[in-house]
Amino acid sequence: MVTAVNASNPDSPGANRAAPPSAKAALDALLDLVGEDLTRVNQTIVDRMHSPIALIPQLAGHLVAAGGKRLRPLLTLGSAKLCNYAGDRHITLAACIEFLHTATLLHDDVVDESSKRRGRDTANAVWGNKPSVLVGDFLFSRSFELMVEDGSLEVMAILSRASGVISEGEIHQLLTANNIETTEQAYIEVVGAKTAALFAASTRIGAVVADRPTAEKDALEAYGRNLGIAFQIADDFLDYSAREAELGKAIGDDFRDGKLTLPVIHAIARADADERAFWARCLEEQDFSDEDAEADLAQAMALLHKHGALDETVRRAHDYAEAARRALDIFPDGPIKDILVGIVDFSVERAY
Amino acid sequence: MVTAVNASNPDSPGANRAAPPSAKAALDALLDLVGEDLTRVNQTIVDRMHSPIALIPQLAGHLVAAGGKRLRPLLTLGSAKLCNYAGDRHITLAACIEFLHTATLLHDDVVDESSKRRGRDTANAVWGNKPSVLVGDFLFSRSFELMVEDGSLEVMAILSRASGVISEGEIHQLLTANNIETTEQAYIEVVGAKTAALFAASTRIGAVVADRPTAEKDALEAYGRNLGIAFQIADDFLDYSAREAELGKAIGDDFRDGKLTLPVIHAIARADADERAFWARCLEEQDFSDEDAEADLAQAMALLHKHGALDETVRRAHDYAEAARRALDIFPDGPIKDILVGIVDFSVERAY
Repeated sequence: MVTAVNASNPDSPGANRAAPPSAKAALDALLDLVGEDLTRVNQTIVDRMHSPIALIPQLAGHLVAAGGKRLRPLLTLGSAKLCNYAGDRHITLAACIEFLHTATLLHDDVVDESSKRRGRDTANAVWGNKPSVLVGDFLFSRSFELMVEDGSLEVMAILSRASGVISEGEIHQLLTANNIETTEQAYIEVVGAKTAALFAASTRIGAVVADRPTAEKDALEAYGRNLGIAFQIADDFLDYSAREAELGKAIGDDFRDGKLTLPVIHAIARADADERAFWARCLEEQDFSDEDAEADLAQAMALLHKHGALDETVRRAHDYAEAARRALDIFPDGPIKDILVGIVDFSVERAY
Repeated sequence: MVTAVNASNPDSPGANRAAPPSAKAALDALLDLVGEDLTRVNQTIVDRMHSPIALIPQLAGHLVAAGGKRLRPLLTLGSAKLCNYAGDRHITLAACIEFLHTATLLHDDVVDESSKRRGRDTANAVWGNKPSVLVGDFLFSRSFELMVEDGSLEVMAILSRASGVISEGEIHQLLTANNIETTEQAYIEVVGAKTAALFAASTRIGAVVADRPTAEKDALEAYGRNLGIAFQIADDFLDYSAREAELGKAIGDDFRDGKLTLPVIHAIARADADERAFWARCLEEQDFSDEDAEADLAQAMALLHKHGALDETVRRAHDYAEAARRALDIFPDGPIKDILVGIVDFSVERAY
C-alpha cells in the first residue's frame, strides 16, 4: 500500500493526483501502521465514556460508533510514530483528542439543527438538544480529565488553547453565516480555528510526547494545520458535489443553511448584479423558490460552474495540501513520512 | 458585622436562626474580608473574556455583569484566607471557577429554555441558543486555560473532576424531570453533582493553594459540599416561596417545567391517590388546567402546606447547613471562620 501512496508522487507539486482508490490506500496504510495503537485508543474511548448515568455512554456511543474515521487520533498516532515514540502516552492523548472532537460534533449538530451525520440520525435528532449539549459538556470534561492524567503541562496548554480557538471559530462561523460579504480571508480564519486547530494540536502532540526539538514540533503542527484547512475546504467542496450522497451527507446542506463556504465565496466574488441578488435571497434571506430549495440549488450549481468556483476551490485545497506536505520536509524520507503525505492526498482527494 | 453573624449562634443546632438581615451581613462581612481580592478576580474575568470575536465578551459579559453574587469565587478567596494563604494563585483560580460556573449557566439556560435569570433576559433569549452553547464552550476552554497557567496538577484534577461531575448531575437531573417516582436520594445525588461539586472544589482549592494538610483540604471540601447542597435546597424551596419574586426569579418555574425538587418530592411521598394523580398530570404530563398553570400552582402550594413539605425542606437544608458548619470544627475559632459559618446561614436563610 505504501507503494500505491508513493505512486501519487506527493513531493512533486502539480503532479497528477492519485485517483481516490490510492488516496483511500493511504488511510489504509496508516491504519496498518498504527492499527494496534488504534485498537487501544478505541478501548480507552469505550472505557472512559463510562458513567453511572447510562444515557451518557448511550448517547456518546451513538456518535463514537457512527463510523468516524478517527482521523485526528490517527494523526497523533502517526505523528508519534514518525518521531519514533515508544511509550504509551499517545494512546491516552489520542482518546482525549477524539473526546474533544466528539464534544464539538455534538454541539455542532445542536447549533446547526442537523438531523443526519455520516448517514445516521444525529444524537440531537434521537435524544433531543438537551442531552446533546450536556453530554458534549461531559465529553469536554472527560477529555480534560484524560489530559490531567497524562500530566504534561505542555500538552494541556496545547489542547486547552486549541479548545478555546475551536469555539472562537465556531462563533466566528455563526457570524459569517447569511452574510454574502464574507471574504475568503474570513473563511480561512474560521476554518483555521474550527477545524485546523485540532488537527494541528493532534500532530504537534505526536512530537511533544516523543520529546522532539521545537523545530519538529512546529513542523508537525504546520503539517496538521495545513492538512486541516485542506480537509475542510474539501469537505465544503463536497457539499456541492454529486459524490457527496455516497458519503452519507445530505446534499446542499450548507446552501440551505446559508453558510458562506469557499465555493460560494468565489462565485459571489465574480457575480453580476442579478447573481448577487440571487445569492442574497438564498443565503441571506433564505427565501427559496420551492420548499426543498431544489430549483435554487440547481441555479447555485450552475453559477458555481459558470465562474469556475469549484475548480478554484480545488486549487485552494491543493495549495494547503502542498503546504502540509512541505512542512514534513525536515523529516527524513521513509515509509512513515510517505504515509503521512498520503493522508494529505486522502484528505483532499476524497472530494472528487 | 462579624458580631451580627456570631449572634446567629451557628454552633448550636436548632438555635433560632438569624433573620435575613444578619445573613446578608455575613455576605457583606465576606466581601469586606476579601474585597480587594474580589476586585482583582473581577478584573481577571473581564481581561480573560476577551476575544477578537466581539460577540464573545458581549454575550459572556451580559451574564457576568448580571449581578451574580460571585459566591463560588468568594468561597475560594475566603477559604484561602482561612488557610492564611499569602500568594496570588487564588485570584486566577477564583476567576477560573467563575468561568466554569458561567459556562454551566449558559448551557443550563439553553437546556431549560429559560428566558430570565436574576431578573434579566437570559443570553439565549437575547442572542439565541447557538451563540449561548458556543460561548459556554469558549468559557469552559478559557477556564481550562487559566488552570493550565496556574500549573498545578492537583488543582486541575479537582476542577476537571468537578466539571465532569457537574455535567453528569445535569444529565441525571434531565432524567429525573417529569418523573414523580424520583426519590429524595436521587434528588440529593443530582444536587450534590450539579451544584455542590463546584462549591466543594471552590473551597478545597483554598486549602490546596495554601499547601495545607489533607485533613484541612478535606474539611474545606466537606464545608463546600454541604454548603452547596444546603444552598441548592434553599434555591429549590424559593421556587415555591412568595419571597422569590423579590429575587428576580419567575415563580413556579420548576413546577411548570416538571422538575422534581425536594418540596414536591416530600409532598408526593405523602400524597393520596387523588393527589398523586394531580402531581402526575402536572409534573409528568405537564397538562395544566389553564395556560399559565396558575390554578394548578395554587393547588400545588396547598398540597405542599397540607403535608408540611416546605417545613420538611427547610429542615433538610438546615441539616446540610449544620454539616457544613461542623466541617470547619478542625479550624481554630476566629473572625474568618465566623464569616464562613455566616455564609452558611446566608445560603439557607435567604430563602425564608
